[in-house]
Amino acid sequence: MPRYKITVEYDGGSFVGWQRQDTGPSIQAALEDAVFAFTGERVHVQGAGRTDAGVHARGQVAHFDLVKPQPTESIRGALCFHLRPHPIVVPTAEIAAPDFHARFSATYRRYRYRILNRRSPAALDRGQVWHVPVPLDADSMAAAAAVLVGRHDFNSFRSINCQAASSIKTLDMLSVRRDGEEIAIDVGARSFLHNQVRILVGTLQLVGRGQWSKRDVEEALRACDRTRAGPTAPPVGLCLMEVRYGLAADDRRNAEDLVDDE
Amino acid sequence: MPRYKITVEYDGGSFVGWQRQDTGPSIQAALEDAVFAFTGERVHVQGAGRTDAGVHARGQVAHFDLVKPQPTESIRGALCFHLRPHPIVVPTAEIAAPDFHARFSATYRRYRYRILNRRSPAALDRGQVWHVPVPLDADSMAAAAAVLVGRHDFNSFRSINCQAASSIKTLDMLSVRRDGEEIAIDVGARSFLHNQVRILVGTLQLVGRGQWSKRDVEEALRACDRTRAGPTAPPVGLCLMEVRYGLAADDRRNAEDLVDDE
Repeated sequence: MPRYKITVEYDGGSFVGWQRQDTGPSIQAALEDAVFAFTGERVHVQGAGRTDAGVHARGQVAHFDLVKPQPTESIRGALCFHLRPHPIVVPTAEIAAPDFHARFSATYRRYRYRILNRRSPAALDRGQVWHVPVPLDADSMAAAAAVLVGRHDFNSFRSINCQAASSIKTLDMLSVRRDGEEIAIDVGARSFLHNQVRILVGTLQLVGRGQWSKRDVEEALRACDRTRAGPTAPPVGLCLMEVRYGLAADDRRNAEDLVDDE
Repeated sequence: MPRYKITVEYDGGSFVGWQRQDTGPSIQAALEDAVFAFTGERVHVQGAGRTDAGVHARGQVAHFDLVKPQPTESIRGALCFHLRPHPIVVPTAEIAAPDFHARFSATYRRYRYRILNRRSPAALDRGQVWHVPVPLDADSMAAAAAVLVGRHDFNSFRSINCQAASSIKTLDMLSVRRDGEEIAIDVGARSFLHNQVRILVGTLQLVGRGQWSKRDVEEALRACDRTRAGPTAPPVGLCLMEVRYGLAADDRRNAEDLVDDE
């Protein structure tokens, strides 16, 4: 029973999120339906990250098993074909090791959060950026972001619904860069807490507005209290860019980072 | 009677093009309706470039006159408000000189053409890229593009419907760059012939496929015959990025470049 690894790109705007739910259409259900339409097999499609409602992906990774083997190029093509009514695409498909697990084998995840920072809303990027009409100082956001990089207790930066046993995570990268009217916030870690990226962004934009200092961010981190960090930025600007597997064996990260809850 | 200069960003996918037509919704008509809704004045909104059906813009420029002066920030905000049902936004509005003309005063126009070059179609960039599933060699496209830069008779590279008196134009820039799965073609000139950018792209992709050589492009240019160049690339990948005004007085360009027909 071969295992397949696929990458998945989607516009999350019209979905209740990655995960299958009774409340509406999910990416997972659309993929499972597409696999069924192609193979006649009812499978479980396991994603690397359970993106929330409205969150996008360019590099989501998932795996599933088939009873009857199929050429990977047929899988890629057939899934794209059956997914055509949805803004979901499968850019790549390959055979995976039997013990490969899209979620638990992942060693690095990278998200990008896009802010459109101008008076007028988006036309071409509508649905893919958070529109912040007040001028943001990206340099001070970048300086404050540096405080958050590294291994910390991120309890202030997770949803009150987050079910992770530990709130200690290691942020490998958190960069803030302005390109014209757009501010891109790139975040990389082995794994994230639920809503961690969006709360990081919601906090950093307070710094960008001049309402918070770098010191306020430090204090919010130290407080280990969700009510002390900034608001949760809206899902529309968030995109799962990349999931990596198989880091070096001398990986310094800790067991608590293994499971992702973003 | 003050004249106003606005920039306009739009997703051209659902329009018959910039220009008002009986056959369907146009950007121009939407803007004129928005000006009327705000001011009660029926104006003519003159654009810098008459983009075709399906072509997008991030930096279209237009002008119009009002009998009753309005603060520019009110114009920007009110136009965005009244345009909300459409994927059209006015990022900036300013007062222009009485002799400013969005089309005839323009001294530089820059377009970007985006190709998604992978097997699977686009999900997040759907409607904004041309999907070419066959591998393209961007380096050979860039080398062939160099042949076309400068002052040439571009008769091979204009629509048979092009109404420009002369087909001599000066291409200031034509670059081809790959970034992962995407190939971006940037083109800059004082003005363009009708469909010139799309025929340039349609020709260069033949080089990228390995079907044409750089020499074939040279010969197509020399032939001054539309049937000797490549096909017209679809509008979906094309975007008017920028229009500039007021170059230096020692502008070496010629009178025939003054009017844009792309």
